[in-house]
Amino acid sequence: MTKENLQACHNRIIPHIHNTPVLSSRLINRMVGAQVYYKCENFQRTGAYKMRGATNAIMELSEDQKQKGVVTHSSGNFAQALSLAAKSLGVKATIIMPTNSPQVKKNAVAEYKGHIIECEPTIEARQGAADKIVEETGATFIHPSNDNTVILGQGTACMELLKEQPDLDTVFCPVGGGGLIAGSALAVNYFGNKCDIYGGEPFEADDAYRSLISGKIETNKTANTIADGLRTQLGDKNFPLIKKYVKAIIRVTEEDIISAMRIVYERMKIIIEPSSAVAFAAVLKEKESFQNKKIGIIISGGNVDVNNLPF
Amino acid sequence: MTKENLQACHNRIIPHIHNTPVLSSRLINRMVGAQVYYKCENFQRTGAYKMRGATNAIMELSEDQKQKGVVTHSSGNFAQALSLAAKSLGVKATIIMPTNSPQVKKNAVAEYKGHIIECEPTIEARQGAADKIVEETGATFIHPSNDNTVILGQGTACMELLKEQPDLDTVFCPVGGGGLIAGSALAVNYFGNKCDIYGGEPFEADDAYRSLISGKIETNKTANTIADGLRTQLGDKNFPLIKKYVKAIIRVTEEDIISAMRIVYERMKIIIEPSSAVAFAAVLKEKESFQNKKIGIIISGGNVDVNNLPF
Repeated sequence: MTKENLQACHNRIIPHIHNTPVLSSRLINRMVGAQVYYKCENFQRTGAYKMRGATNAIMELSEDQKQKGVVTHSSGNFAQALSLAAKSLGVKATIIMPTNSPQVKKNAVAEYKGHIIECEPTIEARQGAADKIVEETGATFIHPSNDNTVILGQGTACMELLKEQPDLDTVFCPVGGGGLIAGSALAVNYFGNKCDIYGGEPFEADDAYRSLISGKIETNKTANTIADGLRTQLGDKNFPLIKKYVKAIIRVTEEDIISAMRIVYERMKIIIEPSSAVAFAAVLKEKESFQNKKIGIIISGGNVDVNNLPF
Repeated sequence: MTKENLQACHNRIIPHIHNTPVLSSRLINRMVGAQVYYKCENFQRTGAYKMRGATNAIMELSEDQKQKGVVTHSSGNFAQALSLAAKSLGVKATIIMPTNSPQVKKNAVAEYKGHIIECEPTIEARQGAADKIVEETGATFIHPSNDNTVILGQGTACMELLKEQPDLDTVFCPVGGGGLIAGSALAVNYFGNKCDIYGGEPFEADDAYRSLISGKIETNKTANTIADGLRTQLGDKNFPLIKKYVKAIIRVTEEDIISAMRIVYERMKIIIEPSSAVAFAAVLKEKESFQNKKIGIIISGGNVDVNNLPF
């Protein structure tokens, strides 16, 4: 995936996405001892960066493929993103959701006119249900994070950040399925100026941290983290990019995540989901290594139940 | 106060304030049937637009006055703003706060190095305490809303909004002490293009609504509103501007305020205080009159206890 691919992807999706603002806070800068720039994908359409990759994936389909629709399995932000991207582009989207998905998430998908098919809450059942739709309708399966068109789309957030702040020393991303950090790594490589990329990950779901050490994709036996977007694992499309470009993955505790989330709410006055707080928590944890540097953080999303904040 | 005064004020304070972003949401636009632009003063330093007026008021003092310091009475956002503005400009600020002010507000003032003097929670006691400081130290009293240098400073938020969105048909502001809407009215008059200005006010503290009808400054017997920033009353400096320029004041219920606040949290992903939700609630209430228009809203602040949200 070349610099031209990434630039072309951005040009393609730009009518369908927000160029989200980059915020900063002098108060937090003093707290960290560095200049920190927050790329606010919580303000993206559907409330998360996933809209970028979903839009690109659909736009890259042939007319014939578009007519047959798309399908994915997700109970999170990608479900909403693919639904809205499909609706905007006149394509039918089928979303496989486990029966135990919260009603609020099903409602969000329905609001964007995604067609929901429920399945048992196991990986086999959801893949089986998706395969069945592909077989029956000829729809194209789009993976939420392990797909090159999705990875490119997700990278456009970091690309926009670097165009606005070209002298960043470092970019921090949360790491879940690996799509965001792989795309961001491409953006840092093509548009950064001696810029590094780091990942933030919960100790409770530290598969990417362990994968970078072992050199192969590791899984999580459990994933008891509040950062619900980060409970997934890496894939064979994004892991090689992560291995090649990501300098390190910083692990944080659940307490670190909640504390970082609260600081962002109180000082930045923005609503972020716990997964986004993971990246900021990683910056706070390693702040001694980044004194007087310019740091970018991808605030990945803001889809959280404001009635049930963890503080 | 001329266009040149407002422009000069903006030039003066710009190194000390954020030029806050203007956000929008396609989803809320569809809900309202209009294009709505939110000037996010919740992202301003100290979390509210008050930083603008406080900074201008201090910068307009003579060197001799600056040496003797400033004093105000406020338990809200102006207390923090005057403290930080004074600290940034090397001036001493004394803040008169009622003994029953929440500890969190006293802490915020202390964090910005404001010198707190407590008084009994009555209007007479706080004015008396301020007069005593003026007498003893020669400090200059700066009123939170009824002061021309403050009014000009507050108007710069709306001026920035109109420079970014010059074709707004209408601007909505919350109305409390009247400083924000008076300054915004000047900005609309000088920088708007056939633009109107409306106020939003709680039924529970509708003194400005009644003042516009009677033609003289009315008071609130009670002010049992969640919009704690709007419990104050108009003054003789700002009321003439409000009378001259403000097209109407829209009153909203407490339920309207909480519902509007929740929509902003869930859809815009920003943290706003109830007073800011009043302006958005007024837009929602009168949306039939503004179909297909371009509407600006001054999101006045984001200082709210995230542990005690009203929903």
